[in-house]
Amino acid sequence: MSYRVDTVAIAGLGLIGGSLAAALRASGFARRVIGWGHREQSLQRGIELGVIDEYTLDLDAALSQSDILVLCTPTLVASQLLREILRRPLGDTIITDAASVKGDLYRAALETCNGQFPPRLVLGHPIAGSEQSGVEAARADLYRNHRVILTPVAGNDAGAVAQVRDMWAATGAEVVDMEVERHDAVLAATSHLPHVLAYALVDALAQSDASEAIFRFAAGGFRDFTRIASSDPVMWRDIALANREALLASIDMFSEHLGSLRKAVEDSDADTLEATFRRAKSARDGFAALLAERGLSRGDKD
Amino acid sequence: MSYRVDTVAIAGLGLIGGSLAAALRASGFARRVIGWGHREQSLQRGIELGVIDEYTLDLDAALSQSDILVLCTPTLVASQLLREILRRPLGDTIITDAASVKGDLYRAALETCNGQFPPRLVLGHPIAGSEQSGVEAARADLYRNHRVILTPVAGNDAGAVAQVRDMWAATGAEVVDMEVERHDAVLAATSHLPHVLAYALVDALAQSDASEAIFRFAAGGFRDFTRIASSDPVMWRDIALANREALLASIDMFSEHLGSLRKAVEDSDADTLEATFRRAKSARDGFAALLAERGLSRGDKD
Repeated sequence: MSYRVDTVAIAGLGLIGGSLAAALRASGFARRVIGWGHREQSLQRGIELGVIDEYTLDLDAALSQSDILVLCTPTLVASQLLREILRRPLGDTIITDAASVKGDLYRAALETCNGQFPPRLVLGHPIAGSEQSGVEAARADLYRNHRVILTPVAGNDAGAVAQVRDMWAATGAEVVDMEVERHDAVLAATSHLPHVLAYALVDALAQSDASEAIFRFAAGGFRDFTRIASSDPVMWRDIALANREALLASIDMFSEHLGSLRKAVEDSDADTLEATFRRAKSARDGFAALLAERGLSRGDKD
Repeated sequence: MSYRVDTVAIAGLGLIGGSLAAALRASGFARRVIGWGHREQSLQRGIELGVIDEYTLDLDAALSQSDILVLCTPTLVASQLLREILRRPLGDTIITDAASVKGDLYRAALETCNGQFPPRLVLGHPIAGSEQSGVEAARADLYRNHRVILTPVAGNDAGAVAQVRDMWAATGAEVVDMEVERHDAVLAATSHLPHVLAYALVDALAQSDASEAIFRFAAGGFRDFTRIASSDPVMWRDIALANREALLASIDMFSEHLGSLRKAVEDSDADTLEATFRRAKSARDGFAALLAERGLSRGDKD
């Protein structure tokens, strides 16, 4: 069998890292997938589950043995870890990641490397996930038919970018390029803002005098609307901190629109209400049709 | 077979009215269910589908023949129709409704009846629905395990309230009482506000410069969060107009909480962000467990 690379190292073996490892083994992209992390139990479980071939607790060993090292830790950990890694001699190892925010890693790289972007660092973000977490939930087909956004920059080595693109393509994902700033703005709008809105609504209602009646009489529409408020609080705290600027801009954009709708309600302005609801329904129906075309099922998460 | 009442008239034969009619026939609550409306085609279809026994286009005939007349039209139509009905001699006929807002009907009744609430008018609201609409979508089990809120007032005839309670119980629903104002506040919080937020978000994103990329890269979390923005714009325009005061209060309550979260993002206040997200997740997980206990499935809507 001919492999595209010899060794891929996965730093952080949860759902995202474990699923990437499993996909790379299943596809034959790498001869060997090794796990690195602090929690030996997860790494040991990764071997039992057949997700990785080997593991190490030694970051230098992981770096020196791998053609590609993928940071699959939570967002803020990825930023710290990237700084540590970029202070070491990297040789030809390509560094990439799967974090939800790209701007903070981009800035961390520039700061650590005196303003010179490391040519073999390729930032990326798979738009996939599930309700579950941890290596137990890893599955080789998690990325199939999902999108992976890469944010290559002018200083990047073209060969390294191509290698990372091939890696994600091997998982069955569709790989697209985007600018760092645009990635963070788009993700703020489609994912980070909705999470903040859902958290804000549920927390506001939970603190209301009528909270018991509110949750007692809420139904299916409310359940779907607030489902993302059941997401991991630490993960979303970190994303909110990491994508601060774009998230603030999204919140302000939303608040302005909500203010307009509020005014229409206050003025009993039936025309504006209906026109706004119609435009929104049309956009949302179009979006749902797009998702259905791509065959994405209900359990998919970003 | 012994029926609880002889004749129930359903004014407005869509999903809500059609399902109530079908449930009342199936349960043997009424000997006869007649439909009234302007659209003869829907009424004719109701007979073909076995949802109603007969229909009439004459409101006076519907009133004089029925023990209970149920307004199942859209919210604002129900208000107009109620005014028309209350100007007629009603005899012993009980009038009730299934509209999403109660305060506007309450005020309409007081205005039409010179400040004296009609004893045999019992306002109510079944918390049920589905993605579909129209009499074709009617099903006898729509209300099973769902809640119906009645908002009896001091001036109500106790026998009339009991009769309406029995009617809904016959559909398999759990019937609870609530004050008019509280009903509208609770529904504003759990249903009307989330719809306004979802419409505002989708419309804001659709108008953004990046809208193409936004909808292209949105995933499952966004789909669920925005599902209610695919709801009927005219129905929701009417609800927003009918429940103006409570909706405005809900929007303001939400905006204040969103403002606090925005400040935490701006201040990079990790503790506040995490504490808020944790509280929300805990409340939302508790709510999901409650819904699961009641055995409500994903397609349910409010």
